[in-house]
Amino acid sequence: MVQYQEQLDRTFAALSDPTRRGILERLGRGSATISELAEPFGISLTGLGKHVQVLEEADLVRTEKVGRTRWCSLGPQDLDAERRWILGYRLMLEERLDRLGELLERTKGQES
Amino acid sequence: MVQYQEQLDRTFAALSDPTRRGILERLGRGSATISELAEPFGISLTGLGKHVQVLEEADLVRTEKVGRTRWCSLGPQDLDAERRWILGYRLMLEERLDRLGELLERTKGQES
Repeated sequence: MVQYQEQLDRTFAALSDPTRRGILERLGRGSATISELAEPFGISLTGLGKHVQVLEEADLVRTEKVGRTRWCSLGPQDLDAERRWILGYRLMLEERLDRLGELLERTKGQES
Repeated sequence: MVQYQEQLDRTFAALSDPTRRGILERLGRGSATISELAEPFGISLTGLGKHVQVLEEADLVRTEKVGRTRWCSLGPQDLDAERRWILGYRLMLEERLDRLGELLERTKGQES
């Protein structure tokens, strides 16, 4: 349970930045070097390296050093726990709306 | 587009904490005061107030002051954009696996 919570903490935090989401979208089209990733975002290699590290710690990205170049690709994290948490939340919202609807119906019944 | 990105930033950041996710799960069962929310988490009212503020800024919680008591309930944010972003990511992962599969099939074809 603690591990599950820590995974949600790390992945949701990793996804809370537009550059990091952009890196993931770019890597979906294929592996890239740190320099290739940095270019479209107009940020320094150091800045980009920090974002990649956050993504790596959340298992969303994996990196491999080939010679002097660090290659980045998508990691093993498939966001299934995150998908399920959001789904559970949305089900809860629907149930709450259903309960409000029922309450409204009952109130109407009492009025007539 | 900027607004969409800012919403994702705020909601994913709001969801990256176990206490904040716990508050949302608790509020799914009904409204609660700040003191009622603080108790099961064993944190101070000030600490809990800060978490509620982050959730409020992400439209996940709304608060209303009745007399001297602040009541919290779930807000209008239904996490649909977040659900869609994660779904898009998972589709991308599947497509990447399909491409790898095809590549493997082709390599096997060349070997035989």
